[in-house]
Amino acid sequence: MARPNTALMAGASLFAIAGAAAAAPAPMLGFTPGGADAERALETRFDANISAAALRERMRLMAAEPNQVGAPHNKANAEYTLAQFKAWGWDAHIEVFNVLYPTPKAEALELLGDHPFKADLTEPAIAGDDSSARQAGGLPAYVAYQGDGDVTAPLIYVNYGMPADYEALQRLGLDVKGKIVIARYGVGWRGLKPKLAQEHGAVGCVIYSDPADDGYGAGDAYPKGAFRPERGFQRGSVQDLPVEPGDPLTPGYGAVEGAPRIPIAEAKTILKIPVLPISWGDAQHFLAALDGPVAPKTWRGSLPLTYHVGGAGAKAHLLVQSNWDQKPLYDVIAVMKGAREPEKWVVRGNHRDGWVFGAEDPLSGQIALMEEAKSLGAMAKTGWRPGRTLVYASWDGEEPGLLGSTEWAETHAKDLQSKAVVYINTDGSNRGLLSVETSYSMRRLFDEATSAVNDPETGVSVRDRALADLQVRALAPDASADLKAKAKAAKAGADLPVGDLGSGSDYTPFAQHLGIASINFGFSGEGQSGGVYHSAYDTFEHFERFSDPGYVYSVTLTQTAGRLVLRAANADLAPFAFTDLASSVASEAEEVKALVGTQRTHAEAVNRLLDQKAFALSDDPTISSGPPDRESVAPNLDFAPLDAAIDRLKTASAAYDKAAAGPLAADKAGKANTILVGVEQALTDSRGLPGRPWYRHLIYAPGLLTGYGSKTLPGVREAVEGRRWEEAAEFIGRTAAVLDAVSAKLTAATQILTK
Amino acid sequence: MARPNTALMAGASLFAIAGAAAAAPAPMLGFTPGGADAERALETRFDANISAAALRERMRLMAAEPNQVGAPHNKANAEYTLAQFKAWGWDAHIEVFNVLYPTPKAEALELLGDHPFKADLTEPAIAGDDSSARQAGGLPAYVAYQGDGDVTAPLIYVNYGMPADYEALQRLGLDVKGKIVIARYGVGWRGLKPKLAQEHGAVGCVIYSDPADDGYGAGDAYPKGAFRPERGFQRGSVQDLPVEPGDPLTPGYGAVEGAPRIPIAEAKTILKIPVLPISWGDAQHFLAALDGPVAPKTWRGSLPLTYHVGGAGAKAHLLVQSNWDQKPLYDVIAVMKGAREPEKWVVRGNHRDGWVFGAEDPLSGQIALMEEAKSLGAMAKTGWRPGRTLVYASWDGEEPGLLGSTEWAETHAKDLQSKAVVYINTDGSNRGLLSVETSYSMRRLFDEATSAVNDPETGVSVRDRALADLQVRALAPDASADLKAKAKAAKAGADLPVGDLGSGSDYTPFAQHLGIASINFGFSGEGQSGGVYHSAYDTFEHFERFSDPGYVYSVTLTQTAGRLVLRAANADLAPFAFTDLASSVASEAEEVKALVGTQRTHAEAVNRLLDQKAFALSDDPTISSGPPDRESVAPNLDFAPLDAAIDRLKTASAAYDKAAAGPLAADKAGKANTILVGVEQALTDSRGLPGRPWYRHLIYAPGLLTGYGSKTLPGVREAVEGRRWEEAAEFIGRTAAVLDAVSAKLTAATQILTK
Repeated sequence: MARPNTALMAGASLFAIAGAAAAAPAPMLGFTPGGADAERALETRFDANISAAALRERMRLMAAEPNQVGAPHNKANAEYTLAQFKAWGWDAHIEVFNVLYPTPKAEALELLGDHPFKADLTEPAIAGDDSSARQAGGLPAYVAYQGDGDVTAPLIYVNYGMPADYEALQRLGLDVKGKIVIARYGVGWRGLKPKLAQEHGAVGCVIYSDPADDGYGAGDAYPKGAFRPERGFQRGSVQDLPVEPGDPLTPGYGAVEGAPRIPIAEAKTILKIPVLPISWGDAQHFLAALDGPVAPKTWRGSLPLTYHVGGAGAKAHLLVQSNWDQKPLYDVIAVMKGAREPEKWVVRGNHRDGWVFGAEDPLSGQIALMEEAKSLGAMAKTGWRPGRTLVYASWDGEEPGLLGSTEWAETHAKDLQSKAVVYINTDGSNRGLLSVETSYSMRRLFDEATSAVNDPETGVSVRDRALADLQVRALAPDASADLKAKAKAAKAGADLPVGDLGSGSDYTPFAQHLGIASINFGFSGEGQSGGVYHSAYDTFEHFERFSDPGYVYSVTLTQTAGRLVLRAANADLAPFAFTDLASSVASEAEEVKALVGTQRTHAEAVNRLLDQKAFALSDDPTISSGPPDRESVAPNLDFAPLDAAIDRLKTASAAYDKAAAGPLAADKAGKANTILVGVEQALTDSRGLPGRPWYRHLIYAPGLLTGYGSKTLPGVREAVEGRRWEEAAEFIGRTAAVLDAVSAKLTAATQILTK
Repeated sequence: MARPNTALMAGASLFAIAGAAAAAPAPMLGFTPGGADAERALETRFDANISAAALRERMRLMAAEPNQVGAPHNKANAEYTLAQFKAWGWDAHIEVFNVLYPTPKAEALELLGDHPFKADLTEPAIAGDDSSARQAGGLPAYVAYQGDGDVTAPLIYVNYGMPADYEALQRLGLDVKGKIVIARYGVGWRGLKPKLAQEHGAVGCVIYSDPADDGYGAGDAYPKGAFRPERGFQRGSVQDLPVEPGDPLTPGYGAVEGAPRIPIAEAKTILKIPVLPISWGDAQHFLAALDGPVAPKTWRGSLPLTYHVGGAGAKAHLLVQSNWDQKPLYDVIAVMKGAREPEKWVVRGNHRDGWVFGAEDPLSGQIALMEEAKSLGAMAKTGWRPGRTLVYASWDGEEPGLLGSTEWAETHAKDLQSKAVVYINTDGSNRGLLSVETSYSMRRLFDEATSAVNDPETGVSVRDRALADLQVRALAPDASADLKAKAKAAKAGADLPVGDLGSGSDYTPFAQHLGIASINFGFSGEGQSGGVYHSAYDTFEHFERFSDPGYVYSVTLTQTAGRLVLRAANADLAPFAFTDLASSVASEAEEVKALVGTQRTHAEAVNRLLDQKAFALSDDPTISSGPPDRESVAPNLDFAPLDAAIDRLKTASAAYDKAAAGPLAADKAGKANTILVGVEQALTDSRGLPGRPWYRHLIYAPGLLTGYGSKTLPGVREAVEGRRWEEAAEFIGRTAAVLDAVSAKLTAATQILTK
């Protein structure tokens, strides 16, 4: 599913410093100085095999037909990928899982009343885009894992359909009970919109793309420009991903032949209400029919009408029925055995299934992954071998719910937890700046690897470009304190700051379920591709015109991922820097503590103003937006256990990083690596997070109310945000405990290295 | 001209505390306790004469026909007003001035090229609004004091046409030389748009109303709702008001019979290029024809198109020719002699001329002023007399350039400077919250008077409602530090914070040219009238539906203005509180000092990032928005002379306010009042502000680059903003000097009261 329209994501994670790359070879994390020189030479050889022409030809072949789960071209692409891996000398196979995968059987959306209208629900071919005329076998307007339904009810507009929007609705004295909500795409994850609608009593949900967000309000529409045209819409999954991803019928274990399946009715991650995504061309008929209060200022988009909330007059009929069949997934898995530590794995993955043609999402990342495999294979044919075992994966079924990666990770959990050093993920990528989320211990590896790859547009390293951008953004009048602090630290020499792992791509089962250190990255910001995200216009033609003309960033992506893989595989000591973990956790903890203080101050002020009737006095009584609810005032939460554990982690990580930077005996490295593989896992708690035990990581998780967006220290933070004070106190303790477990492992590794 | 669409004005000046009005009679500034009781009884008598029905009938009569300068109905309204004043027992007359007043002779705006289009430039009648069908004799699309011109040139979009927009254009590598700019209304004053365009070399200017700002993007369009319909446009003045208002041919002196007139070519405040205001219905044809770069994100409005900057392809033809005749102005002046201090004046004014029907702007204020006069006249008929002389003024020609008030103030400057205690202004007003700007020494009078008037919607005093609103706004996440500080101070009991006097209504010649303490206020925020501002739809019908149904706020406005007039006329000691002046000036000085620091930090950061090429690295090279210019780094400006003068002012004002609160002998009050009348004048400097000597006040002025918007400590602040460091240092000294002059006067007044 890649990342959605970046224009809609607040504070994406890109960063930067300016200046020329250092002339003298920098130290390389985990390598001896001699080993670092050899590694640099190896990377030069790796680059020599990369070809923009080969990347383009692979894109042309794989994006030629619709390739969603179950489509013939998806299977053809799996077989092509398998054959290529084999031809390049890899030990490759297809691993099949059988998963529940609904497909549309019947669907309709109609406006009733004086100006009846029937939504079209298809995307017409676009002049100059030959691919868009080859949609046979592709999906119409559809979202996966919604509920069957045939409902007729009043329509009500809920803006982005996020929690704050429901609070605003309540203040207006309105609710969605028994109604069909119409929400616009953006701000929060797609799947939360119908989920929250359902929880508030709605009987159906329509999601449209407002031109303000990714259509003519953002830039010229396709084909004149890159942005969403009048009849383009965004497919996607509405599976309850923040609870758990993967096959809904095999929760927590692999959907292999013979595995037990729970009944569909018991599946926790399937919605109950029908949902359809529509274009703004369709949506404007429905929105124009709404009356009732004028929508709050921040709810208004770029359509040429006054946005009303509705809820009374205009009625709609919404019908969706799906085939609830099982379908096979084809994960292509390719292995290249390591010479020195074959029982340690470096896992590298990208998904292969799209929503229609999927040129940028996901094939831009898929073709790079294959180009890496081609180059590594070519080196292997000359006798070279990686230090650790490489496991390359071309995932199927990511779009409907991270199916291929989750089922594979659940099936191979035990091996992964004892062997995997790191999981390196990419997904849809275009051109521009680095976009990255990693486990905090991976910040230095990422910083060093990206310092060794040049940006094709500017000639400086991709890291230095990201750091320049960070500094420019930190200068903006509305820059957050966090952004400014990160820019200052980076300028002073800290490792590139990274975003926090949330969800929305295949790293989730590795990072947040199994506790495998993970990296997810790509290039973005200049591809203007948000407007065709998950539409039939994410094509070969669109990709070449806008996402990556000349495939130059596809080459850069290959170079960067290749370095990450090679360094993770070849470093004597597995390339973790734990002082980055300690400082990052410390800064997140300070943020949560500040949040508690801000919430308390705000709650006290709101409650005082409610006592004084200040909201009622301030309001226009004829169009009152209503007073807010009273707020629960935060007690004095005791953060001391967490603070103390962070202090111990700072000490232990500093000692480890110091020891790791010293001279290294090979036998000690191997012993230390066995401990190091378990450090990220020590950050998990087998009881998991409240209401979603599948998510076990206590440092980062997708937010229950953000979807893709990360919540750091999620047990504590989400309890604070939800004003559940006992739960917050419990998770302060549990989070402190996992940090102490990490400190113990680091101390043990330090002892091995220094004794 | 009233205030423009308040939705477009950042940080308007409303404020608030909640809670019941105090039960015990509060002290009343300038009155003995016994005098305060009598005054309260008098105000109750004043209120008894106010009639909503009379206000409505007056509105119906005066708004019946177009009433701009020179229109027959304008003269009829003057004669009606005169007759009414006389009937109410006032000593009234019409004072005539002859001023340059251009009117349209020929005008046209056409789009050339493949999709030719001719702008309509008229406003059709609207169903249900009978007035809108009576436009005969009214003005078409027109702005006053533009230049004649007939130009054909490429069209270029400049957003709001403010200085920051020209900086953005320059970064894009574009300019307006030889082109016709199209700007949207909002953010800055109308007249700045063509002025800045002209200064940047444009040959013409079109200004349109984007639906995002006051049309369907803001709310339902008229007649369904109150907002600007497809073919509504905003007339107005583009005279160079921040340089000086009034008749351009008699700068600085009254345009009386026989006064010398300078040639039109020498008039400083008339623009050189042609300008037309148009509707969005017309504008969308021109904007859709533009190509070139996509407009920056903040430049995009709510029209259903991708906003481009243009500048190359699309051409337009713009023609405007005016009759450059002189026209008579009819100021109605009515006097009621004071019993105790007849040689001290309380001046009260509101303009009478509109752009078309002018129901809200200005007649909503005009009918209240007349209702006050009616009630005062009725009281006078029972033998009552005010303590000081009341001078009521119904100004003509405010819309084209504060003509009636400026010519009168210039003609009677000497009398005013020796006699006027205060000038109290209103203009267009609707319903909702207090909106106010005052001389800082008038804050307490305003606070006390508004505490004694109840808000018709909530029942609390209009002051308490404003303070409740202030507290609610201070809670918003984006509330400024200044707003929070004002809310905190008000909650702790400080006088209602007030906005700073800028321009845009008739107080300007009194406050900023003559140094008469002034108050300008009204009610707004709920009338939804911004969308018909200066259009043919500001009618009796629109006013009754949206601005003030039932004329309840017209009554409230009358009650409030009446109290201000009566207290200013009757207080034993003229009602100034100078500690408010000292604390307000101190807070503005801190703001300017902080600005210097912020500018320095920003300049250093920008220049460093330029050295590092960070902007170029951060940018998308294919659609680069270009690096900013290097910035001049602020030197260490010496604010010590200003700080020291403020300290002395704090001491002198505290001593005066303490003395004024003590027991009072009548003979001392009279002597002190003679000094007090001169205190606000002591804040002026006869040399005036740089490039605009007519503006003499060193504490507040309309900004040269904001128009209506105020700049406090303008000599210092505008020099700092323009990075003219020597000028800033000079004005630190000159501002300190006027503060010291005030301190000297206060010390003299204190000595009179205490000796």
